[in-house]
Amino acid sequence: MLKVDLNCDMGESFGLYQLGNDEEMMQYITSANIACGYHGGDPHVMRKTAELAKKYGVAIGAHPGFPDLMGFGRRYMNCTPAEIKDYITYQVGALREFATGLGLKIQHVKPHGALYMMAMEDEKLARAILEAIAEVDSNTIVFAMNHSAVVEAGQKMGIPVAKEVYSDREHTATGSIVLTRKGPSIQDYRQMADRVVRMIKEGQVVAHTGEKVSIKAETVCVHGDTPGAPQLAKAIAEALKENEIQISSIQEVLGI
Amino acid sequence: MLKVDLNCDMGESFGLYQLGNDEEMMQYITSANIACGYHGGDPHVMRKTAELAKKYGVAIGAHPGFPDLMGFGRRYMNCTPAEIKDYITYQVGALREFATGLGLKIQHVKPHGALYMMAMEDEKLARAILEAIAEVDSNTIVFAMNHSAVVEAGQKMGIPVAKEVYSDREHTATGSIVLTRKGPSIQDYRQMADRVVRMIKEGQVVAHTGEKVSIKAETVCVHGDTPGAPQLAKAIAEALKENEIQISSIQEVLGI
Amino acid sequence: MLKVDLNCDMGESFGLYQLGNDEEMMQYITSANIACGYHGGDPHVMRKTAELAKKYGVAIGAHPGFPDLMGFGRRYMNCTPAEIKDYITYQVGALREFATGLGLKIQHVKPHGALYMMAMEDEKLARAILEAIAEVDSNTIVFAMNHSAVVEAGQKMGIPVAKEVYSDREHTATGSIVLTRKGPSIQDYRQMADRVVRMIKEGQVVAHTGEKVSIKAETVCVHGDTPGAPQLAKAIAEALKENEIQISSIQEVLGI
Amino acid sequence: MLKVDLNCDMGESFGLYQLGNDEEMMQYITSANIACGYHGGDPHVMRKTAELAKKYGVAIGAHPGFPDLMGFGRRYMNCTPAEIKDYITYQVGALREFATGLGLKIQHVKPHGALYMMAMEDEKLARAILEAIAEVDSNTIVFAMNHSAVVEAGQKMGIPVAKEVYSDREHTATGSIVLTRKGPSIQDYRQMADRVVRMIKEGQVVAHTGEKVSIKAETVCVHGDTPGAPQLAKAIAEALKENEIQISSIQEVLGI
Repeated sequence: MLKVDLNCDMGESFGLYQLGNDEEMMQYITSANIACGYHGGDPHVMRKTAELAKKYGVAIGAHPGFPDLMGFGRRYMNCTPAEIKDYITYQVGALREFATGLGLKIQHVKPHGALYMMAMEDEKLARAILEAIAEVDSNTIVFAMNHSAVVEAGQKMGIPVAKEVYSDREHTATGSIVLTRKGPSIQDYRQMADRVVRMIKEGQVVAHTGEKVSIKAETVCVHGDTPGAPQLAKAIAEALKENEIQISSIQEVLGI
Repeated sequence: MLKVDLNCDMGESFGLYQLGNDEEMMQYITSANIACGYHGGDPHVMRKTAELAKKYGVAIGAHPGFPDLMGFGRRYMNCTPAEIKDYITYQVGALREFATGLGLKIQHVKPHGALYMMAMEDEKLARAILEAIAEVDSNTIVFAMNHSAVVEAGQKMGIPVAKEVYSDREHTATGSIVLTRKGPSIQDYRQMADRVVRMIKEGQVVAHTGEKVSIKAETVCVHGDTPGAPQLAKAIAEALKENEIQISSIQEVLGI
Repeated sequence: MLKVDLNCDMGESFGLYQLGNDEEMMQYITSANIACGYHGGDPHVMRKTAELAKKYGVAIGAHPGFPDLMGFGRRYMNCTPAEIKDYITYQVGALREFATGLGLKIQHVKPHGALYMMAMEDEKLARAILEAIAEVDSNTIVFAMNHSAVVEAGQKMGIPVAKEVYSDREHTATGSIVLTRKGPSIQDYRQMADRVVRMIKEGQVVAHTGEKVSIKAETVCVHGDTPGAPQLAKAIAEALKENEIQISSIQEVLGI
Repeated sequence: MLKVDLNCDMGESFGLYQLGNDEEMMQYITSANIACGYHGGDPHVMRKTAELAKKYGVAIGAHPGFPDLMGFGRRYMNCTPAEIKDYITYQVGALREFATGLGLKIQHVKPHGALYMMAMEDEKLARAILEAIAEVDSNTIVFAMNHSAVVEAGQKMGIPVAKEVYSDREHTATGSIVLTRKGPSIQDYRQMADRVVRMIKEGQVVAHTGEKVSIKAETVCVHGDTPGAPQLAKAIAEALKENEIQISSIQEVLGI
């Protein structure tokens, strides 16, 4: 039976500012990527989100980003690999403390926004991120784009990497995500869900430029700040069920 | 033989901004209170400071503060106990990750500046801080003022607390520190070192208002941003040696 | 004919985070208190909000707060009067630059949240705020609570102060606002609008503890982050019209 | 008689953190570029620095940077031109308010660090910065690199631009500065001062790669965080005097 993990960015509220429908999303996903206070999230939000993950039995991952709250971590910053390594350690550690207090583990790490994009293309950054993670727990799974520097570095370094596809964004001819600050313009949840099913079954996706790209869908991302994210997640869950694809933990998907 | 722990606030530099003589201080102390990025410190400084502590065999403690870099955590903020609990978890966790990566433990926690002062007087804050720490590791030692709410709460909650005295600041009639934003006006290191010896031997100190106050000196604080801090630390080390007081880890002092 | 100014806190969004219905509120009010980037707001939001004020012919005021985005400026910070003076200068200046670029003036200043509350009770803070404002333009009107230190200091210093009442919060026996982090629990817009009318006509309000308090309603505040704020503003506008109270600029109300 | 302006970055301290020898530098320069709270500086430092400039009769300029205190504004951030325009307006306005209160004007604007470098190469950013400045006061002089996008855009837009050279950094073959996070390795102040004299007299400089580059030295930069900055400034002042080059305001140099 085909299996897939469903992940969502969570805990991106900050102080009085609310973002996303975290509790609703928790009902559909298997992996929660929790913001760690740099691009979004704050300590209170982090605790609350970790508690929600526990309540719904969703695995916890860290979602570290650039120190750029005003830009929500979506702007490239030319930090050095050493700086980025330290930002990862700091943010993952902060979240791990909340998880530990709840008796939970950090299952995975998924860099956020511009940091995710930069790491996928730059081997030095990829290695810096993986080193930060592996220094503390080399069994932590890193979520990464297909055909990326992080996938390659993970293989070389012996760190488990889960290949990710995007339910609510277009893919490029190289399997990369088409980054937009505006978020996706979702119109038809069922159509997007069907595309997810095809990615899992056929191992390919049609890029926004028309080419077919080979792609492995070990974990599927639904962005939490996408308007209608819960409906999309629900549509995906239904389509997966109809197609006898099991929503599983990423460990089960990877067989580790 | 009398024993005492020597602690110093460390890693309070931020980005390009330098503060303190951390490496020099490491040669004299047994407990390093490392800033965690809120009132001072940043991820890069935290890693570097933790590495220094390892190099000199100094035990690592977290030094969390208010989220107020502009005020260096020295301004009272009326956060709720729940907010403060989360700030402690966040900051201690961030530091623990660096320590873990270096194969080290978090030995102790000492709140910084206004957070330290508020916690000493307010039982709810004291409990919030202790809860955050104990949720993850109830053997962590908390550094606190003599006759304070933290000492009381620690006893009730079964969390080890080390009683602290100050080498470079005046004490009040209740054993509290006389807080000043300007730092101390140190003139005579030897005189200050002798006062430390007397506190340890006699169990009391003359307050800035003239009264004798009973005080227990389990750990002695030298502020790292005090001008001449390394000279003061050296003078203390010498005076302790002359008086056959052993500089020891706080565990040895507390007998745990 | 009775006249009153209607003010609302605006421009409190930050980066990706949205707060309030600014454009809708602009249709009802005469004075916009625009956040200046410390407790909320960012440069992009400030420009957009100033442009909205221009579009709807609403006078611009600065709404400076504590440097505490995580607490939305609602937590007391014991800054010195000198620090607060500088924070006011900084924030008012930042907003004035956007206004100047649009050919507009800063009509008024209204401190935000905990800074507002502290200034009302502390003459030194009140003077610090007024000095910062008067150094640049002594005709700027300061919005303040009835019976407050700011009203008194303004009278002594010859700076125009507008006395404010609150449409969506309770008043205390001294005319102060009952501060809550949760926002008001509005149920009946018409009832709140009628209370506003009575405050203007009768010069008094029933405090949340039952006493009648004499109060002068020169400007009425509707909080922008109140759920249903636009409906409340609309209800107030209608009730004022029915009672032949003219919504006017604060200059007209004060006769300056 | 040849004339030249001498500028220095100032007011880059933050809270407890000290940077540079501002008062000493003020004795040598004619233009102070004052940090505005984003990459460095805070409201209290801004007021103090503006007061110092007044005391020494030094013209005030704004020195706005990226919102990146941890990186001291030295890391590229791919903000949009619209975002950067708003950051400039915000920061220049904040400083202008302090200047206005002291009866002073903003004479010039010099972007800081990575923002300076990006603007020099990117016409859209250059225009965004110039628009922000010109919207409020089109007589403000912008300090820019020789042969840069800012010089070109300034000419097209009718905004005065002063061409800058660097006393303490190397120049590239295009007249650009060799950016380093570590600061310059100054060894011989007199040698650097003589190089400044040659740039002014000969209109060219030897790039770090050996080529001669034509360059116009209307204003000479001494970085305030350069170790020995006051000695370097003094050496430059002496060398200029010996060579009968008059240290003048940038207006006199530009003849406006």
